[in-house]
Amino acid sequence: MRETGPMSESFDAVDIIRTKRDRGELSPEQIAWVVDAYTREVVADEQMSALAMAILLNGMNRREIGDWTAAMIASGERMDFSGLSRPTADKHSTGGVGDKITLPLAPLVAACGVAVPQLSGRGLGHTGGTLDKLEAVPGWRAALSNEEMFAQLEDVGAVICAAGSGLAPADKRLYSLRDVTGTVEAIPLIASSIMSKKIAEGTGVLVLDVKVGSGAFMKTQADASELARTMVELGTDAGVHTVALLTDMSTPLGLTAGNGLEVQESVEVLAGGGPADVVELTLALAREMLAGAGRGDVDPADALADGRAMDVWRRMIAAQGGDPDAPLPVAKDTHVVTAPADGVLTRLDALAVGVAAWRLGAGRARKEDPVQAAAGVQMHAKPGDPVRAGQPLLTLHTDEPDRFARALEALEGGYAVGSASEVEAPAQVVIDRIA
Amino acid sequence: MRETGPMSESFDAVDIIRTKRDRGELSPEQIAWVVDAYTREVVADEQMSALAMAILLNGMNRREIGDWTAAMIASGERMDFSGLSRPTADKHSTGGVGDKITLPLAPLVAACGVAVPQLSGRGLGHTGGTLDKLEAVPGWRAALSNEEMFAQLEDVGAVICAAGSGLAPADKRLYSLRDVTGTVEAIPLIASSIMSKKIAEGTGVLVLDVKVGSGAFMKTQADASELARTMVELGTDAGVHTVALLTDMSTPLGLTAGNGLEVQESVEVLAGGGPADVVELTLALAREMLAGAGRGDVDPADALADGRAMDVWRRMIAAQGGDPDAPLPVAKDTHVVTAPADGVLTRLDALAVGVAAWRLGAGRARKEDPVQAAAGVQMHAKPGDPVRAGQPLLTLHTDEPDRFARALEALEGGYAVGSASEVEAPAQVVIDRIA
Repeated sequence: MRETGPMSESFDAVDIIRTKRDRGELSPEQIAWVVDAYTREVVADEQMSALAMAILLNGMNRREIGDWTAAMIASGERMDFSGLSRPTADKHSTGGVGDKITLPLAPLVAACGVAVPQLSGRGLGHTGGTLDKLEAVPGWRAALSNEEMFAQLEDVGAVICAAGSGLAPADKRLYSLRDVTGTVEAIPLIASSIMSKKIAEGTGVLVLDVKVGSGAFMKTQADASELARTMVELGTDAGVHTVALLTDMSTPLGLTAGNGLEVQESVEVLAGGGPADVVELTLALAREMLAGAGRGDVDPADALADGRAMDVWRRMIAAQGGDPDAPLPVAKDTHVVTAPADGVLTRLDALAVGVAAWRLGAGRARKEDPVQAAAGVQMHAKPGDPVRAGQPLLTLHTDEPDRFARALEALEGGYAVGSASEVEAPAQVVIDRIA
Repeated sequence: MRETGPMSESFDAVDIIRTKRDRGELSPEQIAWVVDAYTREVVADEQMSALAMAILLNGMNRREIGDWTAAMIASGERMDFSGLSRPTADKHSTGGVGDKITLPLAPLVAACGVAVPQLSGRGLGHTGGTLDKLEAVPGWRAALSNEEMFAQLEDVGAVICAAGSGLAPADKRLYSLRDVTGTVEAIPLIASSIMSKKIAEGTGVLVLDVKVGSGAFMKTQADASELARTMVELGTDAGVHTVALLTDMSTPLGLTAGNGLEVQESVEVLAGGGPADVVELTLALAREMLAGAGRGDVDPADALADGRAMDVWRRMIAAQGGDPDAPLPVAKDTHVVTAPADGVLTRLDALAVGVAAWRLGAGRARKEDPVQAAAGVQMHAKPGDPVRAGQPLLTLHTDEPDRFARALEALEGGYAVGSASEVEAPAQVVIDRIA
């Protein structure tokens, strides 16, 4: 029993923790208070981490998750694109290895008449970040003011830039806490973290790319489906047209993992080429974004084929100071991994490739670390492809050759050559659609 | 995946939290590390609270609880009474309302030839503390050096004093954290908190008085039994002869709740009188302590009847500076609560009386608050006793009469007069025995 407490506060953090601990439902007022009080540092880190663990283990229902998300949105500013002359659509990926889809997708959708305000982040761990990739383009800058962003959206139709710190600041503090307290893997908290920022961004249409597999955050289809369903419910309840695609991340997407390497591959897709899986997923997501924005009649494949998407890309890069014609950085050193035997590449693990690219310098361990623009892994075969002994399978790129050893360690057991019947790869990139 | 971390540490806190979160078993090495690293402030409060919540919700097995307790003991010093000329026995109560049993029990057991080194604490909330009670005796002091304590044990046979800060310091830090993070109610953590200090005290025999009912920490018999069983296992595994009695705390013990009032009642018991329930429980616990120490042939009732226990009490009080003949403090003001009707007292709720005594000034809300020596509640009837309308049921004592209103509020609904068939009280004080 508590007899005393801060008189000016409406609730007591311990009561709220106990309610969730004992599998109770938190009221809208309790949730609004605890998120706000955490932002004001009235609720301490050790209280929020205990609550996060109770949420992880005991869950939250749809109403609670919606209220939690609303409280995170209320902690910061909201954007409003209703003044634009075009509808807007946004995409969010839960992160994977070789996931450069935002790069060709944003200009492609813009070329089809729907504005794409893509507020993106940086990579952490084995998954890359869109901003890190684009910073491989000489001159390109990620930071835009809101005014610059609006002007570019009206003029070019697509913008990929850094999310300002004003959107859902409670999420930023909470995410850092979850990272050190073993509470990242709570689906209600993952969903509200993503959706609070996306809803605060004010987009009309949101398409979620929820990855599943070794290189993804969600390792099983059941978890990925639950996360997707939770996020679709949150978006829908907040009045955003929201659709999720569940997509494979057991093997990397495309043939590159690394910042400059992925920009190069994206440009190939915009030029009408590129790996089949990257093209397939880009078009699938573009069709969802266009349909959500009322442009379901437009076929984005045409805008890839006739060069309109490439035109938007060039204007988008130039508008943010980048030179679309400048050569991309080249790594100082490379190391080739060859096939150990004749046969078929049966396996190329997304996590192994992602960790290798990270260790080569493409990713960072802490958010303040720099990344190498040219580091990464180039793949010369995908699961199912025939290979011959001694043929190059992977080329590792880095500016610091002493990184090869640990990258090679990460790849041990990450690929295999065998017979065609042993291939471990999905038949398709898009596994499911949740709307 | 974590790529970096403090190189000098054997384990990563997040891995340990995740293991327990995912219902895994923590290794002896992980437990030793996490408790030690928390003491060294390498593991942060927000990490320990997340772990505590995971332990509360997912539990620990007997081996894990034993290792956790050993790690808490290893954080501080251990005492050793093996040099005494007598065997030692100790008692621990989980706390209740009117629980003054330690006061008559320690001199009684000492009078029967077994030394009692009773390291005690202060009250918090509605449950009183043994040291607060004894400090109502003019001149008595709680703080003794280890040397004074040993000398008094050898000479008088009984000592009740403050536990030094050297015993299980990790527990002190962890308990403060649990108090603000909704993780107090974890049976493995409650058991290891109590038992780490008792085992570190080095007693040969330990008798646990585990309270159950409204005024106790454990509200249900199932929870109280689980706590008792867990503590008995911990003591037994650590080589301490350990027995637990489950005892009733649905109604206060005896007829007083408050520091000086309880000293007065204890002296009555030592003089051969006192309320039947207090005498019954004192003798039951004394018999367990004596049996555990190999003196099962001695009947403690004799030492009460012939004044030997009173002699030890007087010497024990005097040895710590107290005057056993000095009058106890008297409250400045009293207020009498009378029976609303003729009938039988059917209910007298332990929690209601405990909170009333606390609000009168007998207890504290924060550990740095002072307590009043004379404040408290005197009861004139127990459940089952016949009463007449207008007859005094309770006398409230305080030095600050403006406290009466809130004390009376606490008592609302806390007692009832009706017919004999409606009496809500246990047939016996001792409900179960766990060994």
